[in-house]
Amino acid sequence: MRVVDAPHQRLLRLLRDEGPVSRAELGDRLELTRPRLLAEIERLVCAGQIAEAGMAASRGGRRSTLVELHPRLRFAAVDLGASSIDIEVTNGRLEPVAAYQEVADIRTGPKAILHRVNELLAKARADGAYDRLDAVGIGVPGPVSFRDGVPVSPPIMPGWDRYPVREMLAREHGCPAVVDNDVNIMAVGERHGGVAHSVDEFLFVKIGTGIGCGIHLAGGVYRGVDGCAGDIGHIQVEAHGPVCSCGNTGCLEALFSGAALARDALAAARSGESPALAERLTSTGAGGKGRADKGTAGFRITARDVADGAAEGDVTCIRLIRDGGRRVGGVLATLVSFSNPSMIVIGGGLAQLGHILLAEIRSVVYRRSLPLATGNLPVVLSELGPRAGVTGAAVLASDAAFEQAS
Amino acid sequence: MRVVDAPHQRLLRLLRDEGPVSRAELGDRLELTRPRLLAEIERLVCAGQIAEAGMAASRGGRRSTLVELHPRLRFAAVDLGASSIDIEVTNGRLEPVAAYQEVADIRTGPKAILHRVNELLAKARADGAYDRLDAVGIGVPGPVSFRDGVPVSPPIMPGWDRYPVREMLAREHGCPAVVDNDVNIMAVGERHGGVAHSVDEFLFVKIGTGIGCGIHLAGGVYRGVDGCAGDIGHIQVEAHGPVCSCGNTGCLEALFSGAALARDALAAARSGESPALAERLTSTGAGGKGRADKGTAGFRITARDVADGAAEGDVTCIRLIRDGGRRVGGVLATLVSFSNPSMIVIGGGLAQLGHILLAEIRSVVYRRSLPLATGNLPVVLSELGPRAGVTGAAVLASDAAFEQAS
Repeated sequence: MRVVDAPHQRLLRLLRDEGPVSRAELGDRLELTRPRLLAEIERLVCAGQIAEAGMAASRGGRRSTLVELHPRLRFAAVDLGASSIDIEVTNGRLEPVAAYQEVADIRTGPKAILHRVNELLAKARADGAYDRLDAVGIGVPGPVSFRDGVPVSPPIMPGWDRYPVREMLAREHGCPAVVDNDVNIMAVGERHGGVAHSVDEFLFVKIGTGIGCGIHLAGGVYRGVDGCAGDIGHIQVEAHGPVCSCGNTGCLEALFSGAALARDALAAARSGESPALAERLTSTGAGGKGRADKGTAGFRITARDVADGAAEGDVTCIRLIRDGGRRVGGVLATLVSFSNPSMIVIGGGLAQLGHILLAEIRSVVYRRSLPLATGNLPVVLSELGPRAGVTGAAVLASDAAFEQAS
Repeated sequence: MRVVDAPHQRLLRLLRDEGPVSRAELGDRLELTRPRLLAEIERLVCAGQIAEAGMAASRGGRRSTLVELHPRLRFAAVDLGASSIDIEVTNGRLEPVAAYQEVADIRTGPKAILHRVNELLAKARADGAYDRLDAVGIGVPGPVSFRDGVPVSPPIMPGWDRYPVREMLAREHGCPAVVDNDVNIMAVGERHGGVAHSVDEFLFVKIGTGIGCGIHLAGGVYRGVDGCAGDIGHIQVEAHGPVCSCGNTGCLEALFSGAALARDALAAARSGESPALAERLTSTGAGGKGRADKGTAGFRITARDVADGAAEGDVTCIRLIRDGGRRVGGVLATLVSFSNPSMIVIGGGLAQLGHILLAEIRSVVYRRSLPLATGNLPVVLSELGPRAGVTGAAVLASDAAFEQAS
């Protein structure tokens, strides 16, 4: 059975996505009779969800009153990474009114991490960002049961399995909360305010520490039966490839991901195969260019170094990126034949490898998928970059708030 | 925007799927008020869609009148294969009242094939199977634009590209018509009356002359942006594999499909590697067991021969099946990680290879996909077998009729 959104949900979303709209236009756009529309507006004004915002320009007859989301509305958007917390507090139109980022290890467990999230939100309140929250949206780096609002068997999140994240946040902040996978919220964010704006059926491929895929269909994010749809990092691409953290061999993310690229780049630096990387290794080791991450024991080569090396024409850096693009492209060609999407968006930390990566992915996808499926298939970089996650979390938070409104 | 089915559609589907239902129960099941229900029933009785069918058993108070689909309702279900036409005329409950099968080469083009379909339907009418049709559903062996009701760039259907199949059938029979891909209608059929009964999210994998996949989600068949979702036969599984009919190398169906298996089995028979197949080759060549297809020049080994050889313990036959299962399993493992379905159904001609094939597919899928996605994932054979297609075509036809009813 399919569910239709109630008129008040459609009204609130319209105001979120487009800003103030006149009553006359609202009636047209939502296909509501005038009495029905006025009743909805009155209810939502009383509930503190919307407010009047002056008069619209005349459409020929009497000027119509503008309606907007109540300026007081506030959503909290949280994007938890393997080693980071990103938070935005937004207004009803999802514009940030406060933002916080800090390093945090997801492995310290749900109590410590969520405690820190709540501290940051308390700080936002103290800073005047909000009086009360209307909803909280949070993304976590692992599979999630969206229905239950809990992580499910997340491989890199010890202690989080079935931890009641949604319940805990909802109780703490006295408002609806929504929990989803980090890649799913990035897909939602990119659809709301990025390159996939208003595109219904697309794949968002995050290439970061690991690799994951958000699947966006007409009805929203597709999560699969157990909430782990899009978990493409452990697809086997080479029967006798390197051993993966999951225990299998030749998984996509064991061959290409932030971790795999750092491993291969370090080897190329040490062996001297890549002069550009060898030089960077020396300078970070000597504390020179100082790109060694805090907390790791010096000697660290990152995706940024490989991107810079490739820009300087270092052939090994270019080869590392191309090899990775070919692997990702091979998997995406399969997924394109299977799911026939209208766009592929590449995001995550390794998207900074830029056009060499993109060109290789495109080349493999276009060569190996069905012509019918690729005839008009853009493969593009994320527009929102590191903000895709919080943007999507804010969208999901607002959807949850609007569902309960009135 | 999501669309909700109108009450009359839900009512008609309920009667189609469950048979006569009392008015009292209909009101409960459809959550309609009594006046609203009575109005719907009256409209549908006047439109000749439903009829009264005596009195229901008492639920304590007054006995309620039973309602059923009108006994006159008739749907035509057509399943076009690469070399076959299957037709059923069904009543409102999708029970066959007439059935016709014959050999036909899809390459003779849409005019000849659809002319023959219409001749067979005229014969059904002459046989008393129907007076007029309420809808026609047809499946074709290639990608379809479901919205436009036309095949789109179908590789094995010369002359059919964008041929107005739906329009032509609708005009000929004066009723709604619906056109879909053959694998999609099999998925729909299996969900209506087979092993996937009432399962929302499953993959139907057809292994026949080629290989395709029907993707069933909560809202129905997922067709992708261009109607070619599920076209998994040309996924590359071996970079240096055999050349495929599509021009690429190492496609799944170049390695395992009816055609590929016949090729490999014939080679094993000729080389003497497989005594069981060599014996069959001799006997068909001598006209003995006579399993050579009409129209081909003798010497033909089929999937049935390989299945029989395996049942007799011929190691080459068993190896051919296992090799094929491993290839299919590898692709399915990827698709399971990506789409996290709740069931995989294996159908098509090669499903007759049975449990050796199934065991190998299961083994690879369970070993290579994420534990979370396979924890409760049945991989099973189609229950409807060769009837899956016509059953699904009848379901789609009835849906189209019900949408227009009243």
